[in-house]
Amino acid sequence: MFPLTQFQVVLVSPLYAANIGSVCRVMANCGLSRLSLVAPQCVDGWDEAPRLACHATNILDAAQRFDTLDDALADSSIVVGTTARGGLYRQHVGQPRETMPKLLEQAGRGAEVALVFGREDTGLLNDEILRCNHLLQIPSHPSYLSLNLAQAVLLCCHELFLAADVYEPPVEKSAFAPASQRERCLAMWREMLLATGFMEPEKADHMMQAFQRVFSRGAETCDDINILMGVARQVRWATKR
Amino acid sequence: MFPLTQFQVVLVSPLYAANIGSVCRVMANCGLSRLSLVAPQCVDGWDEAPRLACHATNILDAAQRFDTLDDALADSSIVVGTTARGGLYRQHVGQPRETMPKLLEQAGRGAEVALVFGREDTGLLNDEILRCNHLLQIPSHPSYLSLNLAQAVLLCCHELFLAADVYEPPVEKSAFAPASQRERCLAMWREMLLATGFMEPEKADHMMQAFQRVFSRGAETCDDINILMGVARQVRWATKR
Repeated sequence: MFPLTQFQVVLVSPLYAANIGSVCRVMANCGLSRLSLVAPQCVDGWDEAPRLACHATNILDAAQRFDTLDDALADSSIVVGTTARGGLYRQHVGQPRETMPKLLEQAGRGAEVALVFGREDTGLLNDEILRCNHLLQIPSHPSYLSLNLAQAVLLCCHELFLAADVYEPPVEKSAFAPASQRERCLAMWREMLLATGFMEPEKADHMMQAFQRVFSRGAETCDDINILMGVARQVRWATKR
Repeated sequence: MFPLTQFQVVLVSPLYAANIGSVCRVMANCGLSRLSLVAPQCVDGWDEAPRLACHATNILDAAQRFDTLDDALADSSIVVGTTARGGLYRQHVGQPRETMPKLLEQAGRGAEVALVFGREDTGLLNDEILRCNHLLQIPSHPSYLSLNLAQAVLLCCHELFLAADVYEPPVEKSAFAPASQRERCLAMWREMLLATGFMEPEKADHMMQAFQRVFSRGAETCDDINILMGVARQVRWATKR
């Protein structure tokens, strides 16, 4: 977790308070908490910010405000800018997926990292780009290249979050079914399908391949196999009565 | 590009038109265009949808409306649900990054794929989860697990877009500098630094290692090296006058 605290998100002169709020929520979703606002415009009124921050107003309340980008970057050793545009001095852009693990490694060695995002309409200006050690371009479709500000922040922070390996996927509690249990299940189904007249004995080998295929694809765990065996058992019981 | 057209995004009873609009923009950013709305609530008024769709109102205008999820899924062969919650029937969730390439491969073989997202407050209900062949959980931080609807759609569609390999990163036009040019550059700097009195001749070998290190890290291309050689040349000229 430690290196994530070395990262701050810097929004340069954002037009809309709604986007500032959305950025707060996105940051919380990705385990980040340090937000800096450089000369925010907020033409939609500040109230939109806490509304869209939702349960992440703590990040909004703790956000630092600065008059200039240089002030916001004073303590940052690595400054990462984002740009949707191309151009001569923007050819060396990297992508978040390849860049974030490197930044995380540098943060682990003590670097303070600023992720800088420009205003909604024009992005970062050339003199702001000059302040960046690294540039990122977020892959998007040529038919609509420009991402909403909070969406751009999300795609960067999400890569950082994944690279930090904080996420723990839910654990399937039922163990993988062993082959012996699978075989017993198929045998029970074979018997049940014969007993109900679903298939003729001479077709059984062939038909069972279809069930084997479906069960192999779909039934991975002991729980899965147990419920299928339960069906075969119950049908045998019902047809015997 | 072809398999991306096999995908549709299905929003189940979204509360806010603003989120519907944001979803349209996100889909355009990721090269998707087919949106289905199941009984949208739009408590904030429909006008928010085109406002947030921004330049993706074509997707909004073409969105299909359905009364029930079953109607929306009638032509889908693969139904992928998203869930932030855990629980007994939600343990087998996959992550977008690992699942999207498989879905794309199946779409390439003709499968129609629906990506289904639940309402903002409660997500997909259990009877809606039952309609899904696959479940996705988007990695997020335990301190704030729940993503905004459009953010969740973005993270899924972005993985799909990356897996489809549509994005072409900008190409650096200047070639990588060959070692010979790097050596010539360092030699010019050595001469210049000696001539200006920046370093004593007996310290030169040692000092040049520092410049070699900075230039190696920072100057990759012929353009980079050329501009550094230009500096050395100009300083020599200026000090000779």
